[in-house]
Amino acid sequence: MSKLPPYEHLVHYYETDQMAVVHHSNYIRWFEEARIFAFDRIGMGYRECEEMGIISPVTAVSCQYKTSAKFHDKVNVELKFTKFTGIRLYISYTVTDVATGEVRATGSSEHCFVSPDGKILSIKKSFPDLYEKLTGFVEEDA
Amino acid sequence: MSKLPPYEHLVHYYETDQMAVVHHSNYIRWFEEARIFAFDRIGMGYRECEEMGIISPVTAVSCQYKTSAKFHDKVNVELKFTKFTGIRLYISYTVTDVATGEVRATGSSEHCFVSPDGKILSIKKSFPDLYEKLTGFVEEDA
Amino acid sequence: MSKLPPYEHLVHYYETDQMAVVHHSNYIRWFEEARIFAFDRIGMGYRECEEMGIISPVTAVSCQYKTSAKFHDKVNVELKFTKFTGIRLYISYTVTDVATGEVRATGSSEHCFVSPDGKILSIKKSFPDLYEKLTGFVEEDA
Amino acid sequence: MSKLPPYEHLVHYYETDQMAVVHHSNYIRWFEEARIFAFDRIGMGYRECEEMGIISPVTAVSCQYKTSAKFHDKVNVELKFTKFTGIRLYISYTVTDVATGEVRATGSSEHCFVSPDGKILSIKKSFPDLYEKLTGFVEEDA
Repeated sequence: MSKLPPYEHLVHYYETDQMAVVHHSNYIRWFEEARIFAFDRIGMGYRECEEMGIISPVTAVSCQYKTSAKFHDKVNVELKFTKFTGIRLYISYTVTDVATGEVRATGSSEHCFVSPDGKILSIKKSFPDLYEKLTGFVEEDA
Repeated sequence: MSKLPPYEHLVHYYETDQMAVVHHSNYIRWFEEARIFAFDRIGMGYRECEEMGIISPVTAVSCQYKTSAKFHDKVNVELKFTKFTGIRLYISYTVTDVATGEVRATGSSEHCFVSPDGKILSIKKSFPDLYEKLTGFVEEDA
Repeated sequence: MSKLPPYEHLVHYYETDQMAVVHHSNYIRWFEEARIFAFDRIGMGYRECEEMGIISPVTAVSCQYKTSAKFHDKVNVELKFTKFTGIRLYISYTVTDVATGEVRATGSSEHCFVSPDGKILSIKKSFPDLYEKLTGFVEEDA
Repeated sequence: MSKLPPYEHLVHYYETDQMAVVHHSNYIRWFEEARIFAFDRIGMGYRECEEMGIISPVTAVSCQYKTSAKFHDKVNVELKFTKFTGIRLYISYTVTDVATGEVRATGSSEHCFVSPDGKILSIKKSFPDLYEKLTGFVEEDA
């Protein structure tokens, strides 16, 4: 089992709201940033997927907020593939403060894979090499 | 049991992404728009809460994406209080296309209530009238 | 000379920043909302333009901030076509608070017109009727 | 005269719009990112300013769009102080594509300085050391 690389994000001023904390919707965007970063690093980046004709829409997302990230904090987003059926990929996320290690939020996302003309793809059938690769990163949630 | 008023949103151009659909993070923002709209209408608006010294942070959020909203679509966001413990409020959301009635997404959010100095509030104990009012809107999910 | 219809916007919570005012970048988005609203009303909506094969990118934008809009404020965005050369359209904006009439910001945007394959269009030459219509809304800045 | 450090930004997926380019409002946010990054590096970071009791709101902003940044592009934001009166600071920005060197956009922002209770500050009078420092970065636009 291989580990996905973690992602660091420095909180932008425009991500705060009038409670002087990061607006909760931005964590969903950080999950995307972290996902794209990790996919890139494991050779499944945007260009590679485009060439293979694979698009992977978000079919569900969730976030549980624990403590508040603030402007100029550096946060770390760790992600794990918790399950991959060949058709659906399940990812979990943990956002921690880099300075204190405090958990800011946990979350999840679900993805399917579609062709450019919108048909659902079975990665297992159509891209067996990619299936093997992704499966190698799957780890059960503790 | 009273019904919460639904909320209409016209999709903005800046809410789209390069798939030519609404970026998934914006649904989380629409939930907030709908929630604030509904809270206003039931006499629990921002000003009222501020005067009472109640802040209600989002402690969790989820969204399941069914079909894609597009630029200039009018969407309807219906919300329900699915549970209220006096300490935690659970809300569910359904986003439908106004023209076709198609469900775009469903979702949920969880909220606690805190005082301006950050202490967790029991609405049941500290604001019994508000507790009664909110409870009157709770309906079980079908 | 005809007047363009004004546009109303209720400030969303997620548009605020930690200074407890609207983040300055959002005014640029309100200009777009107001522009799309007005274009719709004068029969030059998104669908009409798409059918005619006209896309109008923003080539420049500016905003001068006077006073701060806050959460839940209702603001009015008035726009004017200040110049139209047939190739470039110049628009000015004034954002005022609906309750007090105070000016929150003024701004401007510039637009060209391109075909779906990216060629610059002369509306004057290629769409003379549309040229007449748009010209009818041009008014000089006071 | 000292140079301000440039800032790099990797274009996020959620920053694109349905034209498959970066939505124009995001450049205004990148200016802010670059500004905060540079202020940090020259010892005028958020924490330092907070300790000194200085807030610097944006009083005006402009952007001229030349070519389109796309998803996953790396862009470089160079900024210059073009004028500093002691009361008002004028900054110019140039956004270029890191791979090709093509200019994506140019822009500007204007800032004043206020105390936590909202009074306009003269940096020249109240913070002469900071005035000297900032003045050392001012360079005329070519």
